[in-house]
This record gives sequence, structure tokens and C-alpha cells, in this order.
Amino acid sequence: MPSYTANIRDMQFVLHELLHVSSSEVPGYADLERDFTEAVLDAAGKVSSEVLAPLNPVGDHEGCRLENGVVRTPKGFDEAFAAMKEGGWTALDCNPDYGGQGMPYVLNCAVGEMFVSSNMAFNMYQGLTHGAVSAIDAHGTEAQKALYLPKMIACDWTGTMNLTEPHCGTDLGLLRTKAEPQEDGSYKITGTKIFISAGDHDLAENIIHLVLAKAPGGGEGTKGISLFIVPKVLVNADGTLGARNAVSVGKVEHKMGIHGSATCVMNYDGATGYLLGDLHKGMRAMFTMMNEARLGVGLQGYAVAEAAYQNAVAYAKDRLQGRAVTGVENPGGAADPLIVHPDIRRALMDQKSFLEGARAFTFWGASLIDRAHGLSDHDAEGLISLMTPVIKGFLTDKGFEACVLAQQIYGGHGYIEEQGMSQFTRDARITMIYEGANGVQALDLVGRKLAQDGGKHVMAFFEMVKAECKAHEGDDRMKPFTEALKAASKQLQTAGMYFMQNGMKTPNAALSGSYDFMHLMGHVCLGLMWTRMAKAAYAALDGGASDTGFYEAKIATGRYYMARQMPACAMHLARIESGAEPVMALAADQF
Amino acid sequence: MPSYTANIRDMQFVLHELLHVSSSEVPGYADLERDFTEAVLDAAGKVSSEVLAPLNPVGDHEGCRLENGVVRTPKGFDEAFAAMKEGGWTALDCNPDYGGQGMPYVLNCAVGEMFVSSNMAFNMYQGLTHGAVSAIDAHGTEAQKALYLPKMIACDWTGTMNLTEPHCGTDLGLLRTKAEPQEDGSYKITGTKIFISAGDHDLAENIIHLVLAKAPGGGEGTKGISLFIVPKVLVNADGTLGARNAVSVGKVEHKMGIHGSATCVMNYDGATGYLLGDLHKGMRAMFTMMNEARLGVGLQGYAVAEAAYQNAVAYAKDRLQGRAVTGVENPGGAADPLIVHPDIRRALMDQKSFLEGARAFTFWGASLIDRAHGLSDHDAEGLISLMTPVIKGFLTDKGFEACVLAQQIYGGHGYIEEQGMSQFTRDARITMIYEGANGVQALDLVGRKLAQDGGKHVMAFFEMVKAECKAHEGDDRMKPFTEALKAASKQLQTAGMYFMQNGMKTPNAALSGSYDFMHLMGHVCLGLMWTRMAKAAYAALDGGASDTGFYEAKIATGRYYMARQMPACAMHLARIESGAEPVMALAADQF
Repeated sequence: MPSYTANIRDMQFVLHELLHVSSSEVPGYADLERDFTEAVLDAAGKVSSEVLAPLNPVGDHEGCRLENGVVRTPKGFDEAFAAMKEGGWTALDCNPDYGGQGMPYVLNCAVGEMFVSSNMAFNMYQGLTHGAVSAIDAHGTEAQKALYLPKMIACDWTGTMNLTEPHCGTDLGLLRTKAEPQEDGSYKITGTKIFISAGDHDLAENIIHLVLAKAPGGGEGTKGISLFIVPKVLVNADGTLGARNAVSVGKVEHKMGIHGSATCVMNYDGATGYLLGDLHKGMRAMFTMMNEARLGVGLQGYAVAEAAYQNAVAYAKDRLQGRAVTGVENPGGAADPLIVHPDIRRALMDQKSFLEGARAFTFWGASLIDRAHGLSDHDAEGLISLMTPVIKGFLTDKGFEACVLAQQIYGGHGYIEEQGMSQFTRDARITMIYEGANGVQALDLVGRKLAQDGGKHVMAFFEMVKAECKAHEGDDRMKPFTEALKAASKQLQTAGMYFMQNGMKTPNAALSGSYDFMHLMGHVCLGLMWTRMAKAAYAALDGGASDTGFYEAKIATGRYYMARQMPACAMHLARIESGAEPVMALAADQF
Repeated sequence: MPSYTANIRDMQFVLHELLHVSSSEVPGYADLERDFTEAVLDAAGKVSSEVLAPLNPVGDHEGCRLENGVVRTPKGFDEAFAAMKEGGWTALDCNPDYGGQGMPYVLNCAVGEMFVSSNMAFNMYQGLTHGAVSAIDAHGTEAQKALYLPKMIACDWTGTMNLTEPHCGTDLGLLRTKAEPQEDGSYKITGTKIFISAGDHDLAENIIHLVLAKAPGGGEGTKGISLFIVPKVLVNADGTLGARNAVSVGKVEHKMGIHGSATCVMNYDGATGYLLGDLHKGMRAMFTMMNEARLGVGLQGYAVAEAAYQNAVAYAKDRLQGRAVTGVENPGGAADPLIVHPDIRRALMDQKSFLEGARAFTFWGASLIDRAHGLSDHDAEGLISLMTPVIKGFLTDKGFEACVLAQQIYGGHGYIEEQGMSQFTRDARITMIYEGANGVQALDLVGRKLAQDGGKHVMAFFEMVKAECKAHEGDDRMKPFTEALKAASKQLQTAGMYFMQNGMKTPNAALSGSYDFMHLMGHVCLGLMWTRMAKAAYAALDGGASDTGFYEAKIATGRYYMARQMPACAMHLARIESGAEPVMALAADQF
């Protein structure tokens, strides 16, 4: 059975030596002193290793089942959920006015990484609730907030997001769920929603569904869409539970992975709903939460891979097979451990160099969200808006690849379910799909984000990279970092230029290269993170840090990323510059 | 539920317009006239679409189960197996002396592609039998051949290959299964074998296990290994079935995919076995079948992806979502079909350009095997020996990637098991692992095959590529092909040179780049195939072929491969040239 131990050392490095959180002016960051974050991470790590990780294969094996209209979660989920609530983990970064602890989002991300690594499916129940809490907090009336938030922040009630319908997901303008206004100001919601995570379960006494539906008078397409609060059990004005609402579970899906997460078809049959936010502005309400939600999925992408990696490392050290080509390394054994073999190293280094870069990138993104919210910093808002599709699309693609690599190290044993490596691959697969499939992320990046605010944010990003390279001029130790980063950044700019020059005349020329652009930008972002991390590691070593092994490994891992991953950038640029012609050449019937 | 229709048009193109089989001097090829292969492929295609494909999700859903010591296959497998036997499909390329039809292997591959595409798990039962038949045919005594082959070729009895043990797979020198010689010339076999495909089932009246075991006196490591025939039910001298042998099933594995294929733990408790081939030469006997077995797995890699691709195309044409950026294409509908979107095209073209290249590469490889065997052509033998790890490693990696791309096109629906796209991804995953994990293929390629016969075969391959490019000098239409191929071939040679210059002094410098070399060489091979296919397509168009749509699509698809896939070569070279240092920098405890 796989095990998991939170990499607290590396998280602390990112928080304190890369992001320097406790010296930041962002509200709440001053509290994030090293000892404090260590204590929080340590406690969360214990819950992850001891409570959540052992339940991960149980959830995969048992899955969720629909019994007499109620979804039953796997054995042990209820006790674990109670433990999470009791530990206050569901309320960490929530609004203190409603029982939250008001911690910065970046700390919630670090803790969330552990929860996802140890049990991604289980973590969906509180994860979806967190999203619904954010939506109600941002768009609800005072009365709505008072009525729903305290219970939801405590996870006595959980939340869901209902967007997708059988015939539409990406293209929400097509949605058919209707909201009919009632005399008392409420609405009757009618329609079918699919792929609803945590749509029903037995972990909470109520479920607060947030549902996108069309109310009369909004016009065609996405313009007519509003967002509604539709409780499973209606809530009386005094907060007590009332009658059962006309919401039912049509089905629990049988999925490739995250079996412990109940993915439901939800039927709304004239269910009572309450408008959340402005009428006909439902899409806008959804979008305000999108950066956070998508960052959360990017985090899932690498967090699952972190757990897979840890087990691959243990297996590579334990499994004896063959001899090192440079001479026997384990003379007392019948063979050397796998980890002596260069190709096993290559696979492990691919994972490690990605994971540590992804962690830095994600925490940095989270700190931008904190900055944007806490200081109303529009530049930070613009930058994270630009980065969001990259975090989501690139980290989930690469996270899945990393899981496949980890599984591969187990050989045939990786294909056998009881070893648990297959679960990581199957679980990670969904992160490339939901919360906007990665092709949609690429479209968002190239079609919207690059040009946002007149291209201001992407230009700022280029300047940031340039300044980072310039800061290390003359430092020979940093050359493997700055040279690769400079080259990649230039390739990214060239690609952007190609889009500008060709995209207006031939939009397909830009869109044909969107996916490659997302990956090219992902590498530049991770290259930037590695450059900054190398700088921090050298600074620590120069300052006489005792933990030299950690810093030397950090630098060596970064050098690996620059030498062996950054060469992908030129490939992506070449593909982009080949334009639309090869992509669009065939008629539909020639496929 | 997914459907499958064999792409007979493309198979015929490869057989007749690329390989020109019927005008080849290889024994048996003269019979492969276009009408004849069309009839065979048409009949096999019908069985695939109508019998095998509908059973594919059934096998995945039900799996195999162990009941009172006997493995039960999924519902319907027995009838389908009977139909396969009755149609003579199990005997197609087998020895006519024992009831086979004696067709060339290349035709068996074309038929095999269909069977794998439509139901990979089901096809394992006859696939493993085919391997065992080849081993007995090549190494058995006349008496053994007469006793076993007719029944096995008819699949009245099936076969298995028993190599792996719980503690060793790749490193067979460690194996512990023992063979004790008996006075009557037989052996008592004792040990545990794992991951035995078709190890037990209810489709045949007997199972002939081929088992690697150590007989006394052979020395340490792989030198002491011999190969034994161990029937499930002992066979009397007259061919009738005798007593049950001391072989039992310990377990049926619960795997990520190919659920319909029974993967068994086999316990041999003093089971009666008969030496196959020479004593202590078991490894050599295994190796003689390896090219064919590994080519078969490479074929699985792309064949599963072919089925996934066909369904992705259908979905992309059917599913309405969003509007083409260049203007509405489906004005009568609420949205345009997915296939109008450039990023969907990119994903489909990635698959299509890989699949058609992979088919050509595999059939070409099969024709080399036919040539090597039929004409005792040592150059062909050397060339296929060089190509085998590339066919196996590259085509299975890329086949899996293609399945993931096909699944992605379905969005959330791709993650739901009833849609069937998840099964393709899960099934394809094993092809990267079994029959030598892909890292082992890369090691075989760089560590053994490059230097085989003094590097003669790799030099011949370079010359072949050079000659192909030279043949089209002055033909502007061929430039997109020859220029990309020439550049990639040069990169491959540079990589080979790097290994030669550094590998002797620092073996890790070569082995750190082995995986990238395998992929680089895979692209050069597919680039060569595409160049030849483009030439054939232009020749057909110049010759006034009526089927212009097919040939134009062929050329456009090839151009896509050259423009968008070949740029990976430079990336692989850059990684290779970064050497061993980044890969080997960390101590084991720094992971």
C-alpha cells in the first residue's frame, strides 16, 4: 500500500526562502512566521499521513454507491471527515466573521497539497464546499452569508457547483436548466446537471448546491445565465432545517478514478432556489472564483504526482534488479537497487524537478491571489489571471505524465491495482479534464489572457523574467539557469509575436499553436521558479546554512530541469511557427 | 459504446503501395495479391467489428475471476473464441505441417492489428498461444512438435510464457524456479511465476505452459536457465489427455486494464516438465522469439490507439460546442461540432499522423522478419533486431499518449467508464510495461543493438535514410519530407556519435540518454515511413488514381507529422548531449 509523508522541508523553503511570506505587506502574511507555518504544516502532515492516506486505496476500491436515493461514501470517510472538521482544517482561510480562521490562501494551498497528495478523492468534499463558500462570501447578501456560511465553513453542510449539462460543458451558452421566478422572490429550478462532484453523500446534514440556470429576460447564450443557491434540505430563517427540496440524484458515475468522490447526475424538478448575486450575471459570478478553482486543480495535478513520486523513490531504493554499469554497488545483495540505473534516475529526476518547480509556481500563484485580494493590487490580479490557465493546464498535463513515470518504475507491479500506483495515474487523469479541459485553458490563455489590458500583464511577465536574468549577470554559478531561461523566454516572446502578426488575419494560426504556447509558457514559468530557487539555495549555502544536503540537491535538481526540460521550448516554438496549415489541412470527412 | 471499423484502405496502401508485397521475392509473398489480401482483411474486419468489439467493454467490466481453482473468462468470450478457431484466424501464419495456413507474418500483423483494436484483452489468449507455438516450432523435437503443435495451432490448447517471478522480471538471472531431472528424462518443476497472461481460463481443454527454470549444473545467473514445456493436463503419447499436472493458479490479478485477459500467479509444485531446446540455453530460446513478441506489443500500442482515435473522430464530428473562430460552420445547429476547433484538430492530427506512421513502421518491421526467416537474410535480421526496441518502446509510449488525447476530446465524458474511452487508455498502459519495460528497450537499443555486428546495422539504416532523401532531390513537393528527415537523421547520428565518444569512458553518459535516443530514432523511423508514403501517394496521384481524397489526405497527414512531430528530435538531442551529470548528480538519499 502506498504511503505519504508531507514534504514540509520543501514547503517551508518555498514559503520562507522563495516567497519570504512573513516579511510581506500582504494582510495576514506577517503572522506566517517560520515556526508558525511549521506547526500548522506539521499538524496537517500528521492528519494526511495517518488519517487520509490509509483511506485512499479504500476509497478507490469501494467507490461511492447510490442506495435508495442517497449516496454512500466509502467506509471510514465519515470518521475522517469528522476529524477534518474537528481539526478546523475546513475553515483555515475562510472569513473569520463566519467562523473561519482567516489565514492567507497560500497557507491553505500548502495544507491542501498534503490533503490532495494523501487522498484526492476525499478532499473533493471539502474542496467543493470551499468553492461554494467563496462564491457566497463574494456574491451573497448579508442574510445569505449569515444563513449558510457558518455551517458551510464548518463543513456541517457541504457545497457543490452545478454547471455542466448532458449536452454542454465548455459552451455554457447552450444550457437548458430553467429558473422560474416565484412570487416570494425565490425561483423554481428545473433541469439536469451532470458531473456534479459531491452532489450527494452521507458526510453532512445538508448540501448547498450552487446552480447555473436561465431566468427569463436575460437573452440568448451566456447572457441569460444566473447563479442560484439550491439547498438539498431547505433552510428555515432561523437556520434550522426544513423540508426536503425537489433535488434528487439520478446516478453516481462509474469513473476512471477518484472513486471516493461522488460524481452525480443531479435532477432539479422545480426545486426552490435563491438568486446568488445579480440576475443574469451568473457567469461573472462564476468567473470571479475561477482563478482560485483552477489553481486548485493545477495543485491537484502535481500533488497527486508528489505522492506517486514518493512511492516510486522508495521502490527504486528497495527493488533489486540488475547491476550498475559502473560497477557493483550492493555487493551483499543478489543485485543492485533500481536507483543505480541511469534511466531510472532520469525518470525520478523528471518527476522531482517538475514537482518542486510546480510547488513553487503554485504557491507563488496563491501569493498573487492573496496580494490581489488583500491589497486590491490590480497588477497582481492581472498577472495571476494570465498565469491561471498555465497553472491549470501545464501542471495537470505534467502531473499526469509524472504519475505515469512513477508507475513505470514499478514495472509490472505498477499495473496491479493493489500496489496503488495505478490509482495515482487514474486519479490524476481527471485534473486535465475538469474545471475547463486543458485545450480550453490554452484557448483562454492565447485567445483572452495574452491580450488582456492591452497585453500589459504578459509584458510585465517578460520584464520580470528579464530582470531575473539580469540580476545574476556575472554570477557564473547561475549561468545554467539564466542562460536557459533567457533562451526560453525569447522563444516565448517569438511565439507571442507570431500570434500577433498572424492571428488577426488568420485566427487559426494562433489557435493551432495555443496548446504548445501553454506548455512553452509553463516551462518558462518553472524556469523562472528554478532560477529564483537556485538563487535562494546559493544564498543559504553562502550564508553558512547547516542543511547543505538540501540546498545542494535543490541546485542539482534545478540544473536538471534547465538542462533536460527547457529544451522542450524550442520544439513548442517550432510547432507554433508551423502555423495553421498542417493542422487545418484535412476536410472533416478525411479523418 | 465505442465502435471499431478496420481501416482496410490504409492497410492495403501499406501492403501494396508502400511494401509492394506481392512483387517481393520473399517466400509466400507472391500470393499476397491485392484481391487476396482485401478478402482476408475484409473477413477479419467483419469478425473484429461484429464479434470482438462488442465484447471489449464486457471484458473490461466483468474481468476474470478465480472460482474453485479455475479461471472464468467474461461472458461471451467462449463463443467468440470458438468463432476465431472456426474461422481459422488462430492458424493464419503457422506451420502448414501442423495445420497452419503458412501465410506470411506481415499479413498476420495486419489481421492482428484489427483483433487488438477491437479487443486487446481477448486477443491475448491466442496471442500468447502464438508465441508458445513459435517457441515449440523453433526449438522442439519432432515428437514435441507433433504432440503439441496441431492442437495449439487450432487453439484447442492454448499456450503461456512463464518468465517473471515475484522478485525478478527484467533481471532473470535472479530466478528461483527449479527443475529437478527425473529418471525418465522429464523434470520436476517447482516455483512461483507471476504476471502469467492466459495462465488459466475456460476457453480451451488444455494449457501448455512454457516455463523458465534452473536445472542443476548450469552455473550462476542466466546461464543456468532452461525452458520447459509444462502442460496443465499431461498429454499421453497418443495425444489424449492424461492426469492433471501439479500446476495451480494462486491468484488472478486485479489490474488497471486488459481486465478480460487473465493475469495469473502460477504455482508449480513439482509439476512434470519437458525440456524444450537445449539444456541451460533457455535464454537463447526465449531471445529467438523476442523480435516477434516485441513487435507484437508495439503493434498493440498503436492498435488500441487506432480504436480510440476512431471514436474520438466520431465524437468530434457529433458533439456541438462553441463556434468556429473563422465563422459559423453549422448555422442550423445551436453550436458547431468540436472538429471545427483548431486545438481539437491538433489532437486528432497528432493521433492520425502517428497511427498511420506506426502502421507502416510495424508492417515494414514484419516484412523484415519475413525476409530474415524466409530468405535467411542476415541484413534483414540485423535491421529488425535494431528496430525491435524502437517499435516496442516508441510505439507503445506514443500509442498511450494517443489514447490519452482521444480520451481528452470527450471532455468529462472521457472519464466516465461507460463511454469506453477510459478503457483504451487503461488497456494501452500495459504495453509500455510488459515484454520488457520501455526503459529496458532503450537500454537494449543503446547498450546492445547500436554496436551489434560492429555497428553495421545502424550504419545501414543511416545509409537507407540518406538514400531516401537523395532519391527525391529536385522534387519540390517532397521537400517538407526530405528536409525534416535529413535534419532528424543528422541529429540521430550526432547522438550516436556522442554515445561513441563518451560512452566508453562514462557509460552513464550513454545510458542517461538512452530513452531520448529511442524516441529520437522512433521519429526518424516514422519520418522515413512518411517520406516513403508521400512518395507513394504522389505516384498514385501522378498515375491518375481515382481515389484522390485518400492520397491527398495521406500527404497532408505526413506533412503534419514532419512539421509538428519531427521538431521533437532536436529536444531529444539536447537532452542526450546534456550527458550524465544532471541525471546522476544526486545521492540516493537526496531523492
